Amino acid sequence: MDEALLKENERIDDLKCKGLKIIQNPKGFCFGIDAVLLGNFCEIKKEAKVVDLGTGTGIMPILIAGKSSAKKVYAVEIQEKVADMAKRSVLLNKLEKRIEIINEDLKNIEGVIGVNSIDVVVSNPPYMNPSGGLKNPEDLKAISRHEIKCTLEDVIKTAGRLLKHNGHFYLVHRPHRLVDIMCLCRKYKLEPKKLRFVHPSKNKKPNLLLLKCIKAARPELKLLDPLYVYKEDGSYTDDIHNIYGKESLNRSK
Amino acid sequence: MDEALLKENERIDDLKCKGLKIIQNPKGFCFGIDAVLLGNFCEIKKEAKVVDLGTGTGIMPILIAGKSSAKKVYAVEIQEKVADMAKRSVLLNKLEKRIEIINEDLKNIEGVIGVNSIDVVVSNPPYMNPSGGLKNPEDLKAISRHEIKCTLEDVIKTAGRLLKHNGHFYLVHRPHRLVDIMCLCRKYKLEPKKLRFVHPSKNKKPNLLLLKCIKAARPELKLLDPLYVYKEDGSYTDDIHNIYGKESLNRSK
Repeated sequence: MDEALLKENERIDDLKCKGLKIIQNPKGFCFGIDAVLLGNFCEIKKEAKVVDLGTGTGIMPILIAGKSSAKKVYAVEIQEKVADMAKRSVLLNKLEKRIEIINEDLKNIEGVIGVNSIDVVVSNPPYMNPSGGLKNPEDLKAISRHEIKCTLEDVIKTAGRLLKHNGHFYLVHRPHRLVDIMCLCRKYKLEPKKLRFVHPSKNKKPNLLLLKCIKAARPELKLLDPLYVYKEDGSYTDDIHNIYGKESLNRSK
Repeated sequence: MDEALLKENERIDDLKCKGLKIIQNPKGFCFGIDAVLLGNFCEIKKEAKVVDLGTGTGIMPILIAGKSSAKKVYAVEIQEKVADMAKRSVLLNKLEKRIEIINEDLKNIEGVIGVNSIDVVVSNPPYMNPSGGLKNPEDLKAISRHEIKCTLEDVIKTAGRLLKHNGHFYLVHRPHRLVDIMCLCRKYKLEPKKLRFVHPSKNKKPNLLLLKCIKAARPELKLLDPLYVYKEDGSYTDDIHNIYGKESLNRSK
């Protein structure tokens, strides 16, 4: 019956968390560990109004609606086909009252959602600079991974505009952009308050960062304990087991 | 004979590195692991002209002159008594041809040294905000630890002024100031290029950072592998042994 929601090449993946599911196209962009870590990292209060900037197939709003008592999650996605998948995943999870997928350019979204109105903004944006010599800039995977349709500055500026005073911004990104992230957040009054680095394993340099900013807060950054993904024997660490839930680690990828 | 260089309460500490020594007052500010890590972190080319901003008792210029073939190390210290100790330590090591201790406010130092003339600037500045309710702002230890006589911005601005195009700036500081450091470095055209976090041990959050900036370089930060100080059994890690040299770890503190 759920399969009626599927289009060509799509499949339903079980998130192994409170019965949640997501529609993905294995040939397209599929969510990764960064989305799961961001979902775990962000704290969402009861009745919060949340925005996800660049939602892709909707993994963040589904995880957030599943794990929290957020009142409403607005999830913005510029790519029509991808936004359509996300909408069908919302229906699949019967979350249409709490999640609204908005097929719009995030640069225009404050006209739709309204400035200074949101409690929490989250984003797992494209990580790559667009300068990498792309063959096809309309390629869906490329748009999810590269700064083709929006820049890091667009994301941070928009988050700063949407958030209420003292609202929270949660970002997952790559460490090589740390300086840009810090400077842009401060430019748009999103003060970095908590930073957690994610390392593939101990002794390896971090390859992801999780950042919490608070709008208009006073400066003082707290570094959190590092998060290691793998133990020396190649198995997941206890921290990762706790984040995923043990059974979900049996997924095919 | 060396003792003739000592004043009341002072003692000579053996750096256990190429016969180098330093005069310290155990009741005053004594150098810590941060200075040793910064000395190890900075790369100094042959014939380089180097400046140390806020040199204290002169640990950085002595380590740098000892480990490198730097042509000249200018070491700036605002406190007269502390600069005097540093000068005597330079004599003690017979390094007076290669190290010049300058008893001056670093905010005025570009008039002495000259802008755009230096290959490498290093600094282990005061870490603490001055707002901490100090009892005696003339206290020598307090001046070495708190931003009383200069701010982080003074240090970074001065480094940016002194360095040649493509000159290198090495800083050791605390992670809670990371956002300030990143934003100020970029403001003064010192692009952060390499960042290494120092953790007390694995699973503990970092409590020091080592940063290399290059003047007028293109943006892209490289995070280095983390540096852990202690093993789980409380002994030093191999990395720390390699930095200190095994024998130097037998020091009294």
